[in-house]
Amino acid sequence: MTSERSTSAPRGPHRLSAEQATVRAAAALEAEGAGRDAATLQAAHLTEAELRGHTSHGLRRLPVLIERLRAGLIDPDAQPELRWTADATLRVDGRRGFGPLTAYAAIDALLQRSARTGVAVGALHHTHHLGMLAPYVERIAEAGCVGVVLSSTEGLVHPWGGSGALLGTNPLAVGVPVAQAPLTLDMSTGSVSAGKILDHLERGRPLPDGWAVDADGRPTRDPAEAVRGAISPFGGSKGYALGITLGAVVGVLTGTEFGLDVVGTLDAEHETTKGDVIIVLRIEAFGQPARSEGLAAYLERVRASGVDGTRVRIPGDRARQARADALADGFDVTDEVWEFLHRAAAAGSKA
Amino acid sequence: MTSERSTSAPRGPHRLSAEQATVRAAAALEAEGAGRDAATLQAAHLTEAELRGHTSHGLRRLPVLIERLRAGLIDPDAQPELRWTADATLRVDGRRGFGPLTAYAAIDALLQRSARTGVAVGALHHTHHLGMLAPYVERIAEAGCVGVVLSSTEGLVHPWGGSGALLGTNPLAVGVPVAQAPLTLDMSTGSVSAGKILDHLERGRPLPDGWAVDADGRPTRDPAEAVRGAISPFGGSKGYALGITLGAVVGVLTGTEFGLDVVGTLDAEHETTKGDVIIVLRIEAFGQPARSEGLAAYLERVRASGVDGTRVRIPGDRARQARADALADGFDVTDEVWEFLHRAAAAGSKA
Repeated sequence: MTSERSTSAPRGPHRLSAEQATVRAAAALEAEGAGRDAATLQAAHLTEAELRGHTSHGLRRLPVLIERLRAGLIDPDAQPELRWTADATLRVDGRRGFGPLTAYAAIDALLQRSARTGVAVGALHHTHHLGMLAPYVERIAEAGCVGVVLSSTEGLVHPWGGSGALLGTNPLAVGVPVAQAPLTLDMSTGSVSAGKILDHLERGRPLPDGWAVDADGRPTRDPAEAVRGAISPFGGSKGYALGITLGAVVGVLTGTEFGLDVVGTLDAEHETTKGDVIIVLRIEAFGQPARSEGLAAYLERVRASGVDGTRVRIPGDRARQARADALADGFDVTDEVWEFLHRAAAAGSKA
Repeated sequence: MTSERSTSAPRGPHRLSAEQATVRAAAALEAEGAGRDAATLQAAHLTEAELRGHTSHGLRRLPVLIERLRAGLIDPDAQPELRWTADATLRVDGRRGFGPLTAYAAIDALLQRSARTGVAVGALHHTHHLGMLAPYVERIAEAGCVGVVLSSTEGLVHPWGGSGALLGTNPLAVGVPVAQAPLTLDMSTGSVSAGKILDHLERGRPLPDGWAVDADGRPTRDPAEAVRGAISPFGGSKGYALGITLGAVVGVLTGTEFGLDVVGTLDAEHETTKGDVIIVLRIEAFGQPARSEGLAAYLERVRASGVDGTRVRIPGDRARQARADALADGFDVTDEVWEFLHRAAAAGSKA
């Protein structure tokens, strides 16, 4: 709800351009046996999250990707198996391949099919972490379609009124084409990411109210108790209801697991049992213009409605601005990411 | 998050059985020229909301339905026009007919088509108020499909950080088949209904924090200020983002209006310009069992996770219990509803 241009933070010691980041991360993946194209696609997707300021889905994920490659939990050469189970439903076996590779292959097939059917839905399993979801729904929106992506995740969130991390953060992304730039929703159904809880733990700072409960399901501001407990759903009982429902939809359509039986992609020991669903709705197939002028005008009106002359943000606005800034000026990475990229590049040059 | 059985409220002076309510409400609609079948379907849908304890979508809507019939804003004889615009996309012109009539006609067609296509989507316009959404997604779930219904509504909710009722309450309903009874999400993206604000105004009671803002977009606990202002989205910035996105999806797929240009169905003067979207996903078309045993077991585990031995509610549990109680014992209506039904029945018997 602030100014259009983000305030510039002090420049950190480790700054990268998008191209530098992608090249270095891809080299690290190639050094582990990934082919050039697959490595570049995966690296670019991590970089894309950095550009948008979503560092939790950025280059800090590279070490675990590499550990999982080494453990055989990712097959860098895998090509997904796509099978139309009905005229407009696509079952996608990722065959342990990189998430972005699988997702974009599914999206290409769904977009093509939707030209005839109007709507097409992909159900993905055996797929690695898709990473940030916004780029997928934006790809779909660029093609004149409404895009929806749902993923199940490992249990991190408690039921409303209950204890235990029985729900995933079960994110929802939606892209809607608009003349200038799409409307892009990309949200988790948790009140906060696990990373932010860990960040407070490391800094010894109490949590804000409403973020988490302890192991007994009681609200806590102690990050250590929160780690033993669970993250709270966003928006109270409604956010809980939304999260558990999205997890159920993903599970039933993909045949993957629910709740605590969902194994994610954060360790280097277990195959993931999560699922993803991708929906493509071709707007012109409904007899409507792909880019509604009415919607564009409405969104401008909402942007102008800010209290005290501020601009209101439409979903996607903040990330788009951050991306533009980072493409122009580069972005900072942590010591850990910087050193990891350097070590990986050095190892790669020896290989 | 409470006991399984609702505590019994004192019995009111005006109690009806489901059948009595449906018969009387249908008679009132028939007295205005509606045919027996259409009147009964509409009346049963209002009664269904009463049974589930959602009186805001119940019989109190009957007077405005009748005013709109008299004003020609509802055509009681209308049959919706269904047109497949692509293989799996259905454009539905409600032709000013009753909402439930249009919605069930669309659902029947979508269910049938989904046997071949796996997924089918309806985009509805010129349709009267669908009323409570849960019964629609439950009908879809009974047929072994995931059902989704989205509606746009008149502006009642402010943007996060902005002022003015620029967003509808844009509800979302999702039904997922489960062995015993479906999981049924039916939520608005506002923090509270307009009816509850008016109820506080009538009783002279201050609003809880977080419900509403005044005309300048500042939080208020004064219900009169809230009426001049707007309802807050549920869940802060995330709920806002979800609500504006759902409204955009409905508008672009149905070709109906956005935000303040959405005319709802609450007055007796204007044609509605809202839209509705219905999505049917046939689970077996994805190669999965229509009723997942894993999901049923997971939901039981969540129900058992309550703090202090309470049961946690799965979306739909509360309404299902209320419905069972009301089917057994009847339900109370207000003086206004009771008298309206009596007057309408008396007028009908003279006709």
